[in-house]
Amino acid sequence: MSQWTEFESKMFELRDLAGATGILSWDQETFMPPKASASRGEQLGTLQALYHERLTSPRLEALAAELGGKADLSPIQQASVRNLAREQTRAKRLPSEWVRELAETQATSVEAWKVARKEHKFDVFAPHLEKLIRLRRQQAELLGSPSGEAYDALLENFEPGMLTGRLEPLFAELRAHLVDIVKKLAAAKAPDTDWVAQRKWDLGAQQRLSEVLLAEMGFDFEAGRQDRSTHPFTQGAGYQDVRLTNRFAEDDPFSSIFSALHEGGHGLYEQGFAPALHRTFASGAPSMGIHESQSRLWENLVGRSEAYWQGHVSHLQRAFPEAMLGVTAKQVVQAINKVEPSLIRVEADEVTYNLHILLRFELELGILRGELNVRDLPAAWNEKMEKYLGIRPPNDGVGVLQDIHWAWGEFGYFPTYTLGNLYSVCIFEAAQKALPTLDADLTAGKLLGLREWLRTHIHAHGFTLGAEERVQAATGQALSVGPFVRYLKQKFGALYGVAL
Amino acid sequence: MSQWTEFESKMFELRDLAGATGILSWDQETFMPPKASASRGEQLGTLQALYHERLTSPRLEALAAELGGKADLSPIQQASVRNLAREQTRAKRLPSEWVRELAETQATSVEAWKVARKEHKFDVFAPHLEKLIRLRRQQAELLGSPSGEAYDALLENFEPGMLTGRLEPLFAELRAHLVDIVKKLAAAKAPDTDWVAQRKWDLGAQQRLSEVLLAEMGFDFEAGRQDRSTHPFTQGAGYQDVRLTNRFAEDDPFSSIFSALHEGGHGLYEQGFAPALHRTFASGAPSMGIHESQSRLWENLVGRSEAYWQGHVSHLQRAFPEAMLGVTAKQVVQAINKVEPSLIRVEADEVTYNLHILLRFELELGILRGELNVRDLPAAWNEKMEKYLGIRPPNDGVGVLQDIHWAWGEFGYFPTYTLGNLYSVCIFEAAQKALPTLDADLTAGKLLGLREWLRTHIHAHGFTLGAEERVQAATGQALSVGPFVRYLKQKFGALYGVAL
Repeated sequence: MSQWTEFESKMFELRDLAGATGILSWDQETFMPPKASASRGEQLGTLQALYHERLTSPRLEALAAELGGKADLSPIQQASVRNLAREQTRAKRLPSEWVRELAETQATSVEAWKVARKEHKFDVFAPHLEKLIRLRRQQAELLGSPSGEAYDALLENFEPGMLTGRLEPLFAELRAHLVDIVKKLAAAKAPDTDWVAQRKWDLGAQQRLSEVLLAEMGFDFEAGRQDRSTHPFTQGAGYQDVRLTNRFAEDDPFSSIFSALHEGGHGLYEQGFAPALHRTFASGAPSMGIHESQSRLWENLVGRSEAYWQGHVSHLQRAFPEAMLGVTAKQVVQAINKVEPSLIRVEADEVTYNLHILLRFELELGILRGELNVRDLPAAWNEKMEKYLGIRPPNDGVGVLQDIHWAWGEFGYFPTYTLGNLYSVCIFEAAQKALPTLDADLTAGKLLGLREWLRTHIHAHGFTLGAEERVQAATGQALSVGPFVRYLKQKFGALYGVAL
Repeated sequence: MSQWTEFESKMFELRDLAGATGILSWDQETFMPPKASASRGEQLGTLQALYHERLTSPRLEALAAELGGKADLSPIQQASVRNLAREQTRAKRLPSEWVRELAETQATSVEAWKVARKEHKFDVFAPHLEKLIRLRRQQAELLGSPSGEAYDALLENFEPGMLTGRLEPLFAELRAHLVDIVKKLAAAKAPDTDWVAQRKWDLGAQQRLSEVLLAEMGFDFEAGRQDRSTHPFTQGAGYQDVRLTNRFAEDDPFSSIFSALHEGGHGLYEQGFAPALHRTFASGAPSMGIHESQSRLWENLVGRSEAYWQGHVSHLQRAFPEAMLGVTAKQVVQAINKVEPSLIRVEADEVTYNLHILLRFELELGILRGELNVRDLPAAWNEKMEKYLGIRPPNDGVGVLQDIHWAWGEFGYFPTYTLGNLYSVCIFEAAQKALPTLDADLTAGKLLGLREWLRTHIHAHGFTLGAEERVQAATGQALSVGPFVRYLKQKFGALYGVAL
């Protein structure tokens, strides 16, 4: 057996284990009966331990090292070796005691966070967060950071190759623009959106509509599904098995529509990997940020555009004949693009959303650099909310305690959301240039051309280049805030009739 | 770490792998998108290979050997060591080349069988069956058979401890009784059952009714589910995660009702293992036959009884108010107990069903003993059908080619169905003795007492005794055809007004 063949069979095994883990996790959030929760935890724990054992086996390490320098491997083979070796190195640096302590701390921490959020008591959560941060600092030390910046080591978990030193000036520039735009829009007249919650939106019609919209954008229901869960997510188990979830509320049809487009964007990425990448470590996205660029592109650039709704308001009228009585496309576009500083990140509009992220990024960095104490987080949070958005949370439940990410001790995750937004505009503009009829196509519901362009330039390549390099190859542009800010100014300037 | 602790952690890992495999198999038949089929096969293959590797590791073998004789282990621990060692020994005897050849032959064989069945061409299937039988003969040799009877080694796959030499006289005795009963009933007047297929039975109402009946028998929907699949089945992933499936047809409400009771019987067994058996090799049933006894008990002894329908006809009337207009409990009982020699095993009634099994058992034995050639199977089949049931298949599609079991080369499986029927009557009669109000309880829908008795005497014990020993401990009776034949004579004699 050649070295490559042996490497490949071990790689296939790892990918199969990851796929099985994916289905078990999906089932846990969709169909699993509640009493199975503990035994599902055991099963997932065993699969993860097996994965770790096989990934870090001395034989696979030797194979990856030997194959690492070989020039006669194909680009996909080279990427597979590179990506597997990267994961291997990081996994080997984290001792199993550390992994176990993190998992246990996360479990108790999530429970404490739930209580703290409900009762608005940050103190209940603070000692757990402190322990998690100690563990994350350890993780950063164990993984190592050539720059000496601990945050870099954590960022690498989600955004390989990205550095804090790149993000800081980028995000500072973005913040200045956003604060300015928010201020200007606050002076403008806000559209009336009360009609949405005042009407009743049939749940069955919402579900059917979400499926129609997903099929229209080219999501392959022969290679995927949409089910229900408490929070929408996308879980892949290979490019021909992509599971989306959604949830439906009677007082708001747009929440499920945008979740479908958002998760559908993730889903198209997963379904779009070239078949040759199947079971290799070259499949998957190069980063969370570029994955998020695809969900944001479909949700915002497509789904919140005037062009899309000029054609799709008829879908709403057919799905909800009563609730839509007398509602125009213009009213829909205004409702889904209302800019309003608000407390909750996941409900924020396109303009204010990234300020929620930048605030979190700054606090995470302050903590990891030792410039901010956990006990001072609520005050720092509220101060920044006031400064960036002009509002103050009435309690920590809708403030510093709102997200689950810190209850897992996930530091370095939030920035990927903003990177996704920045990438999404770059990529969409490149698609617009390549597809001169794109605007008319959005109106006509002819979305397969866009999907094909994204597939060819982004999805099909999987993780054969890093995220930034991939976006640059697809768009000719380096990462910057320029396109995103221009897009916001143009879109919301026109919508609000304000010079931005 | 003590030997037991080390053994236990390895055993837990195996059970978790089996649970994960269970969920992936369930998903494959229920929700998996069609294009995922090939990658699901890869994932299942990897999990099975890992399971085999861990089960047969030299260290686990040594541990099982060392713990095997220890008297200071609890009965559950002893059963775990015994059952794991048994599986280990059998797994080690089958070389991986043989396992791979069987899997490949099964895959091509199933495809050939589908064509053969559809086109009524046994010749298309015959060479595949010959190859499968060669592999099964090899398997019997590899596994070894103290009695020298190859069939025993295969029987052991499904019914540990059972021997051909025990089955042959038992089944011969049963056959004589059944052929006699069938002849006598053929002379009696058959009830009119045309009304069933002439009416339309709402599919949604069928599904809701099946859930009501399952809940009534004590199936815990917090620790299980019922979904749809082409063929109903039960797949457990631990005692708190039991997945049943069903299917619904507009021209027949009873098919889905009896599938619910049947799979529900399997499901109660799986949910009934004592919590202390969780993740051990003492959980699970001691044989397929005893598992089948539980499905048959609920489907037939409970579900096809007059007592049950006197109380439950009102459920039908509420579920199908139009279709049930003018239908009495008596008509229902007659319709679901119509005895009629028919071609298809899975549609057969309680009396003729086991003749279908005995016929297959005799043919399997003839083949394995070299007394019958594959090419002569269709003729032998038709001859026995004529002899036992008085009917001849018009083609092999509804004859020798009807079951998928032989397309997998599964020999030794069919007898477990009849063993299940024999055990079911024994067990039900013991429950009747212990629960004097059982008949009235069936009418009143008070089924939890029966479930509790079954749980206490059968389910909770898992595989701490063999199947026969367990039934004997629960009922005080040894395996025999007596109770089953008496039950049939009494029930169908009364129903048909014929002296049997």
